[in-house]
Amino acid sequence: MTKSLLVLGGARSGKSAYAESRAAAHAGDKIYIATAEVTDAEMGERIRHHQDRRGKGWLTVEAPLDLSAALRELDAPNRVILIDCVTVWINNLIFHDRAVEPAVADFCAALSQAEGKIIMVSNEVGFGIVPENVLARRFRDLAGRANQSIAATADEVVLVVAGLPLTMKRSAPE
Amino acid sequence: MTKSLLVLGGARSGKSAYAESRAAAHAGDKIYIATAEVTDAEMGERIRHHQDRRGKGWLTVEAPLDLSAALRELDAPNRVILIDCVTVWINNLIFHDRAVEPAVADFCAALSQAEGKIIMVSNEVGFGIVPENVLARRFRDLAGRANQSIAATADEVVLVVAGLPLTMKRSAPE
Amino acid sequence: MTKSLLVLGGARSGKSAYAESRAAAHAGDKIYIATAEVTDAEMGERIRHHQDRRGKGWLTVEAPLDLSAALRELDAPNRVILIDCVTVWINNLIFHDRAVEPAVADFCAALSQAEGKIIMVSNEVGFGIVPENVLARRFRDLAGRANQSIAATADEVVLVVAGLPLTMKRSAPE
Repeated sequence: MTKSLLVLGGARSGKSAYAESRAAAHAGDKIYIATAEVTDAEMGERIRHHQDRRGKGWLTVEAPLDLSAALRELDAPNRVILIDCVTVWINNLIFHDRAVEPAVADFCAALSQAEGKIIMVSNEVGFGIVPENVLARRFRDLAGRANQSIAATADEVVLVVAGLPLTMKRSAPE
Repeated sequence: MTKSLLVLGGARSGKSAYAESRAAAHAGDKIYIATAEVTDAEMGERIRHHQDRRGKGWLTVEAPLDLSAALRELDAPNRVILIDCVTVWINNLIFHDRAVEPAVADFCAALSQAEGKIIMVSNEVGFGIVPENVLARRFRDLAGRANQSIAATADEVVLVVAGLPLTMKRSAPE
Repeated sequence: MTKSLLVLGGARSGKSAYAESRAAAHAGDKIYIATAEVTDAEMGERIRHHQDRRGKGWLTVEAPLDLSAALRELDAPNRVILIDCVTVWINNLIFHDRAVEPAVADFCAALSQAEGKIIMVSNEVGFGIVPENVLARRFRDLAGRANQSIAATADEVVLVVAGLPLTMKRSAPE
């Protein structure tokens, strides 16, 4: 089987549901790493909606900033780790004034050494017009570069559009 | 032949022209269901441009809100119905304070029972950065979920980029 | 080999790096046509980053407005011309109040007559929500239509997402 899978998609593309269906197909222990910080009611409701859909049998771990440390600590041969999502993690790093590019490089290093199945969800955010807001432009640049780095490291990359998966990369047959 | 086709694409992607070319390939009567309300000159010109391109031989029906009723009424075994577009319909529902998700569920029910060829155009709007405007975020969420539901129901889904079609789903050979 | 290649992608999708890798695979003289005008430090740094990545062995020509004339003048059977990017050219035409659609038609005419390998980079900008700004909407319309026209003319079209190429069109085997 391919070990690491990056699921890319736009907002409300069904990328999380697709990633969960791929995780559910594995027999191993399931760990969900949430990167979101619950900062408002809208976000809180979105997180509860995701938790309800996954159902029981998942251990949930929060890692809004130290994602690579969480991945290294939790990874094990018979486990499935679902990280949802990379883009929110990038946003948190920017918000807390952490250096994004070294953090992404370290995450890719952890990913390439993982022994279990790692499934990552990330937003594709670069297909609109150039944002007027300079912070939004910086976020878009860093999120796009992170997606490129992780896609280059991952064994399999799937783009989800309207709930339908399109395979962009597959290193080895599953 | 596949009975229902969802054509997804960005703004100015050529999705309407592609949908029209698919409709033109069918021998049956052709009905165009327009969801747009002509509210300004920019929209009026866009609609005239589409009408000129389709040419004669099309019956045009306006259904800005009651799309499912129009579909049920107009559907017939030897007809082709082109709905352009789903995203504008979602926008109209929000603007007129109608419940979007039950309306989409009802539309999918009508679609799955249709006897003629149904071709739908819809915008993919979720590939940019998160909009600052809360109404734009709500619209983006509802439009994205509608696309997922309709894509799950449709027999065939095509993503159009720069006028070029990419098949995302095909339930049966045409 | 296919003679003309359009590389489409979002912001920070890796489209320029992919286009450069395709150009590097050719033995001929390499000419880079830059359409960007250096108007601020952010843009200046982006251009230097691209120049560093391409390395030596490239002749760089600036053509912010008269792209078709530059293409006709520089094209030759054993050359590779990389144009980066179409979208910035469209933006420059609008900014300098030139008519966009005739300029795109003339560019497509020059492209279809080219004798060397022509590789073009362009942004896909239509996958977000409708911009509130009327100028942004006009830019998005013109950029989208330009992509359609050039994609219809090009022998090969590739969509790049997170650094990964997806072939949308290939007229002839390379």
